Amino acid sequence: MTASAPETDAALPEEFVRIARHFRPLAGPGALGLSDDAAVFAPPPGRELVVSADAMVQGVHFLPDDPPDLVARKLLRTNLSDLAAMGAAPLGYLLTVSVPRGTPDAWFAAFAAGLAADQAEFAIPLLGGDTTSTPGPVSLSLTIIGTVAPGAALRRNGARPGDGIWVTGTIGDGALGLLAAQGALEDPDGYLAGRYRLPRPRLALGQRLAGIAHAAMDISDGLVQDLGHLCRASGVGATIEATLVPLSKAAARADRLPLCLTGGDDYELLLAVPPGAESALAAAAQATGIPVTRIGAVASGAAEVRVIGHDGAPLALSRGGWSHFG
Amino acid sequence: MTASAPETDAALPEEFVRIARHFRPLAGPGALGLSDDAAVFAPPPGRELVVSADAMVQGVHFLPDDPPDLVARKLLRTNLSDLAAMGAAPLGYLLTVSVPRGTPDAWFAAFAAGLAADQAEFAIPLLGGDTTSTPGPVSLSLTIIGTVAPGAALRRNGARPGDGIWVTGTIGDGALGLLAAQGALEDPDGYLAGRYRLPRPRLALGQRLAGIAHAAMDISDGLVQDLGHLCRASGVGATIEATLVPLSKAAARADRLPLCLTGGDDYELLLAVPPGAESALAAAAQATGIPVTRIGAVASGAAEVRVIGHDGAPLALSRGGWSHFG
Repeated sequence: MTASAPETDAALPEEFVRIARHFRPLAGPGALGLSDDAAVFAPPPGRELVVSADAMVQGVHFLPDDPPDLVARKLLRTNLSDLAAMGAAPLGYLLTVSVPRGTPDAWFAAFAAGLAADQAEFAIPLLGGDTTSTPGPVSLSLTIIGTVAPGAALRRNGARPGDGIWVTGTIGDGALGLLAAQGALEDPDGYLAGRYRLPRPRLALGQRLAGIAHAAMDISDGLVQDLGHLCRASGVGATIEATLVPLSKAAARADRLPLCLTGGDDYELLLAVPPGAESALAAAAQATGIPVTRIGAVASGAAEVRVIGHDGAPLALSRGGWSHFG
Repeated sequence: MTASAPETDAALPEEFVRIARHFRPLAGPGALGLSDDAAVFAPPPGRELVVSADAMVQGVHFLPDDPPDLVARKLLRTNLSDLAAMGAAPLGYLLTVSVPRGTPDAWFAAFAAGLAADQAEFAIPLLGGDTTSTPGPVSLSLTIIGTVAPGAALRRNGARPGDGIWVTGTIGDGALGLLAAQGALEDPDGYLAGRYRLPRPRLALGQRLAGIAHAAMDISDGLVQDLGHLCRASGVGATIEATLVPLSKAAARADRLPLCLTGGDDYELLLAVPPGAESALAAAAQATGIPVTRIGAVASGAAEVRVIGHDGAPLALSRGGWSHFG
């Protein structure tokens, strides 16, 4: 008798079957069919690399009954949003998936279908990864790789007094969408839950902001907290006006302004743009169809974020944003 | 009152404090202090990129009472082992860490100390990552980035009939070490548990194997199963002789040959080397101090792995290796 390593999928350990069936079709040329120890590819010549990694855990970053395809797409899109914030173009990604034993094949099929949809939308391949079991909740991690022209990466640390503070899209839909998805907020047409589950990485705009924005980041932990990060990195303060913060119709209807200003999951861009670049910003917004709105200005002094309310007085906000250990 | 984003660590959400305190000192120049949306760096000119990602889950890949510094080092080293198997030189890594709320600061300190030790040993920086909470077990994921000369990456699919099958180091210590760490096997000097907890990625040898090895991979899921993968990728079969498989003194003493041949966690290299390159292989082994042993040969025909026992008859092995979903 021999210890055979059979050729048919049916006799291979289940993890290899699942990788072959669901993930291999997603693999780019450099991924070597996901059947080697690593991916190999030549980076685009004359470009810098931009890399970022994010984890998502069931029960923390997504709900147990969120559809697997949307979970996959959100994981990919939150990472793409980091590339957008750096002004980078996506190149590919690596993925690790830890799921309970007994997770049905249909879960993998749906998860992979979500990835396939977004790979097509954003023109990126899977480069590699790992599939393991876990005795706990589904735990996902994704590393995104992108490229940018040398020296053109958008940083958080370039904001200067006098710059306008700008945001893309609308703010607060993600936090409200979580409530809606939990059944704690009315959401008749599902718009808010959709915004929570499927962020829109602002890649097209981000790649046009070199020479326009002094500083940029994506808003993932709440507008006020993330603006605080940008201010600290730049050594400046900022004042924003609550009435200027763009809200969707659904968010305006919900009338939960403090949550919109501090809740997470926006995945919009936060920009510091000097007055002289505002027309270029407007042109970039028009070219990409991504709306931008000026919500305040950078000030000199301590890295403090002041939020002016409807009555012209500073707003008291009870939380600065989302933290995993707060 | 204002919604302030204070400048002092003490008032920041705990995750930012921990990133700043424990992980920022590990960050390389391209990581931008781990305080931007992504890392930015110029890839070494004229090299191809090699990337791989692995996940490790508490209770699956490591034991709940394994020291955090050794868990960190094993995570890094298993990924470095993938680079070694490709003949690549490491460039840096990204890390995601999901831990239960209430995980003590000392856990992070020890985890980071382990990373620091191995960053010094392997001369690589942290490039980025993410820290989140989880309601489940500690879940870790690491993406390694390396480089290789164009076209020089070692693949699994190049083995040809007549090649010798070679392994580095000794086989089976990892699987025995898991038993030892669980108290199920005597391990008076802790050698086996040490081999389980702290693999030795064979980077120095791997980087000398271009033009020598027809095929290479690292042994992570068990010698027989992984040799099966190599055979399938190459479209060949293989016969190995159990008496030729190098065992450590501790493994020989344990007298658990089937487990050594099929157990996981070796992180040694498995090579297919043509007879004409054996002297070059020996020179590479001598130059790096990494022993290599010929354990069998590649054969034409079906992708079947035959293991010949001490008596010259094929060995019956009850399992082909480790699978997460088998």
